[in-house]
Amino acid sequence: MIYFDNASTTKPCEKSVRYLNEYLTDKFFNASSIYRQGIENKNQINLCKKMIAKKLGINFKDNIIFTGSATEANNIAIQGSLRKNFGKLLFSEGEHPSVYNTALALKNKGFNVEFVKLNINGTVDIDDFKNKLTPDTSFVSIMHVNNETGAINNLDYLVDLKNKICPNAIFHSDGVQAFGKIEYTLNSNIDLYTISAHKIYGPKGVGALYSKNKSKLNPIIFGGGQEYNIRSGTENVANINGFMGAVEEIDYACYDYIKDIKRYIIDNLNSGFKVNGELEKTSPYILSLSFKSINGETLVHMLEQENILISRGSACSGSKIGNRILSAMQLDTQSVVGSIRLSFSKFNTIEEAKIVTQKLNEFSIKLKNL
Amino acid sequence: MIYFDNASTTKPCEKSVRYLNEYLTDKFFNASSIYRQGIENKNQINLCKKMIAKKLGINFKDNIIFTGSATEANNIAIQGSLRKNFGKLLFSEGEHPSVYNTALALKNKGFNVEFVKLNINGTVDIDDFKNKLTPDTSFVSIMHVNNETGAINNLDYLVDLKNKICPNAIFHSDGVQAFGKIEYTLNSNIDLYTISAHKIYGPKGVGALYSKNKSKLNPIIFGGGQEYNIRSGTENVANINGFMGAVEEIDYACYDYIKDIKRYIIDNLNSGFKVNGELEKTSPYILSLSFKSINGETLVHMLEQENILISRGSACSGSKIGNRILSAMQLDTQSVVGSIRLSFSKFNTIEEAKIVTQKLNEFSIKLKNL
Repeated sequence: MIYFDNASTTKPCEKSVRYLNEYLTDKFFNASSIYRQGIENKNQINLCKKMIAKKLGINFKDNIIFTGSATEANNIAIQGSLRKNFGKLLFSEGEHPSVYNTALALKNKGFNVEFVKLNINGTVDIDDFKNKLTPDTSFVSIMHVNNETGAINNLDYLVDLKNKICPNAIFHSDGVQAFGKIEYTLNSNIDLYTISAHKIYGPKGVGALYSKNKSKLNPIIFGGGQEYNIRSGTENVANINGFMGAVEEIDYACYDYIKDIKRYIIDNLNSGFKVNGELEKTSPYILSLSFKSINGETLVHMLEQENILISRGSACSGSKIGNRILSAMQLDTQSVVGSIRLSFSKFNTIEEAKIVTQKLNEFSIKLKNL
Repeated sequence: MIYFDNASTTKPCEKSVRYLNEYLTDKFFNASSIYRQGIENKNQINLCKKMIAKKLGINFKDNIIFTGSATEANNIAIQGSLRKNFGKLLFSEGEHPSVYNTALALKNKGFNVEFVKLNINGTVDIDDFKNKLTPDTSFVSIMHVNNETGAINNLDYLVDLKNKICPNAIFHSDGVQAFGKIEYTLNSNIDLYTISAHKIYGPKGVGALYSKNKSKLNPIIFGGGQEYNIRSGTENVANINGFMGAVEEIDYACYDYIKDIKRYIIDNLNSGFKVNGELEKTSPYILSLSFKSINGETLVHMLEQENILISRGSACSGSKIGNRILSAMQLDTQSVVGSIRLSFSKFNTIEEAKIVTQKLNEFSIKLKNL
């Protein structure tokens, strides 16, 4: 089997599985218990937080909050930041549904919510960002790497712009498709940053939110007060430790290796397709393609017959209802319908890329001749 | 080691661990993916739901919603039920923090929230319940089994009372300490029921909410629309399957066995203690004791030195700030300070109970003579 759907989820690495199982069985204790085993589990959770902080290039100051998913982390970042008399909330049109749909829900509730347009290459339109960034803006959320196209936003530049116009506005970024894949030291002006374990060879069911200033966050789920009273619920120490196993294995050196895989496919596909995004402005881990006069879903299922797994796009955005991100990039309907997403892991090989490229060439000719 | 803190969390059973690992590694696929492996994972999730529905004694009609914890399930049950012009919300004073603190948060927001008193035995005071149950009540949440004392509320009776006075009010029950331990067929008039995996030898990080009518629930976390758009976030298929492993192992026959353990301790403790609750009206899985002139926390740590793990009370309610539930049962301060909780699993033995009883007798004499 060739698995080219790693932006959807990755197979946990051996270390992550091992780390998880240690705390699933032998060390299953409740991390909020007052006896030694509980305290040790709490210390282990803090160790995981420190490891993540280190990978983000920040000093750990109890500013990593573990959640049950990155979706929950994004929701806490946004909903947990709300205050009375909150000004404008600014999002990009490219946001993941966990940000975008939260934004829509707030808009429906009467909040002043605006969306920044995307460029044709999938990044945020800087002019539109500047126009919509007003002194009354209270919250900005712009994703780091887009999950459909891999488009990379220049967070440092965006947060600088934000600081010039509305320095007190909270700046959040969904870093799920960036963390552990693209080496990045978190800008000290970023207030909130979301990461996930299962996109980087860790387990599902655990995400984290970096918060520069926890006191600005309210809980959205109430309970026993775990995670600084921001995310209640018995600490999932097994999955958290599995997350750490994945984080320990982060290796930015494979960036170029993955880039070669992506480039090979682009360079060796026949004509009749286009890349949604620019090679130099997208993550090597994600390749969005549009084929002319071909239904992307058909292509997904034909490849599936060959034991090659790819996707039409984010599993989170539903399979058959177009593609909001590609539409926001001004792609015509035909290109949206004809789109597929390949997404890579460090376990993929050039050999696999060759096979997939060959099959894509074969099938796209076959489908065009139908 | 003797582990008598099973109301806090349990060690996952072999089957649960095996089931979890199958979907952690080989079958790690995203259950929302459109290829076969994704569809199979979605089917597996549905199988888990059907298994849970069967154990609850209900027909499965897509009415089990998996969450990241029972805390989240309780929050969805309450916050997700809110509507404009919502009438009174009625809770018991014995609720778990995930219900109680949500209730307080709503009260602070201006909702009409009232709390029903507890009897000395820890169950809900029926007279107070009747008094506070008014025709304008929109929501009632009464836990099934109390997590501090094991007190069992008669849900069938309570929901009947509710139906007489406010038939349209939503009835929710936190069944976390009941499900899988006390055989119970869910009353068809109960609208929402919360359960957890890690209290019944399953993994942490997964809970579920039964909802009789999903259309009455709004999401509190927004995203990709998973779990009927009520709980977004990539399905944690590994933990869900681990949950099923635990559910498959549910054996109500061990009820009497556990009861013997609890009874042994009560019958063989020296004088100078009292049981918080009535044997016949509490779950055999939980034993709350109060010792005269002794600090419960000291007792916990002395037992810990003997490799016996118990707790002062719920890990979720903080270790050193008294005990809200016991206070609601009108216990005097000394009894609250002198309280400990023992909680059992099917893996405990009478031999362990003998050792713990002996140590409790020994230490309580020693502490009194200090």
